[in-house]
Amino acid sequence: MELLKNKISKLGEVIGNDIIKVDMFLNHQIDVDLLNEIGKEFKRIFDGEGITKILTIEASGIGVACITAQYFSVPVVFAKKGEARNIGDNVFSSDVFSFTKDTTYKIRVSRDFLSPDDIVLIIDDFLANGRAVMGLKDIIEQSGATLAGVGIVIEKGFQDGGRLLRGSGVRVESLAIVESVYNGIITYRQANVKI
Amino acid sequence: MELLKNKISKLGEVIGNDIIKVDMFLNHQIDVDLLNEIGKEFKRIFDGEGITKILTIEASGIGVACITAQYFSVPVVFAKKGEARNIGDNVFSSDVFSFTKDTTYKIRVSRDFLSPDDIVLIIDDFLANGRAVMGLKDIIEQSGATLAGVGIVIEKGFQDGGRLLRGSGVRVESLAIVESVYNGIITYRQANVKI
Repeated sequence: MELLKNKISKLGEVIGNDIIKVDMFLNHQIDVDLLNEIGKEFKRIFDGEGITKILTIEASGIGVACITAQYFSVPVVFAKKGEARNIGDNVFSSDVFSFTKDTTYKIRVSRDFLSPDDIVLIIDDFLANGRAVMGLKDIIEQSGATLAGVGIVIEKGFQDGGRLLRGSGVRVESLAIVESVYNGIITYRQANVKI
Repeated sequence: MELLKNKISKLGEVIGNDIIKVDMFLNHQIDVDLLNEIGKEFKRIFDGEGITKILTIEASGIGVACITAQYFSVPVVFAKKGEARNIGDNVFSSDVFSFTKDTTYKIRVSRDFLSPDDIVLIIDDFLANGRAVMGLKDIIEQSGATLAGVGIVIEKGFQDGGRLLRGSGVRVESLAIVESVYNGIITYRQANVKI
């Protein structure tokens, strides 16, 4: 998605050779016009799949999931991280390992919001090691719902998540796949090249 | 807002005499059509204030803030809670006391996203004791921006936040103010009654 790549190149901040900070428009300040273009693109890509629900994970996935959900006319469900906070025991849960924090945390979704009749699209802002998405996939499997695919705004192609998920048969569509970050230069992979 | 009160009465789950669980449409599963009606109502209420930015706090405020921002054509900024996670030192921060968890946590907003030129609307899903909103207000004051007002989806009128904020001169507009919850019956306060 060219508009997105231009935003990343213009406003993203590269730190070292692996961090791309997109706080300016995606995960601290949110450019809602851009999110609308992203939502339309996900609709174009996953149209005809019969999506009944969009699943994401707090916190920074929620904005893009809500804006995208408008184009599918379906509700959003967001998995809650960490402590239970009022969610009760009637939940699907999965353990997610965080490479950033070197620790495992629990994600939870109430059993009220996923059923075998659901066809679920997972939406998230970033895909790196893919552990959070694998946790969501695990929860979808527990519920008996169908996973239609995963829509990612920015995939770090030099980390393992995309390969792991695609390798397990999941349809992953990323609007920008960063192949490498080197000396401040971001190189993108063509999204439709199979690897 | 009648549509909202109907949703709360129909789908909200009352626990004891002080908890209203609205996981079904607001803060776990999200009814995006309802959020659009909420966004239009905030636009009607705060139209003409020259809002340049919507400020909220992760996680459950993000959805309603993003949908609302579409009607104002402005970006959303969400304050980050707890550990810093990649945000750096160039931040405004404030300490927020949580009654639920009986502990104080820090909220942070990058200095890049609030300036003295900004006219800020705070949006959040719930107002109870008001400490999170007071933290956001503190951050806005540190930045030199103007606080135009606070838009809340559901205010617990039997807790102190609304009184504290209005008492300090802040314009707080809540789309539903729950006056009391007793034996499973929810009673609303008329939103335009001054107290």
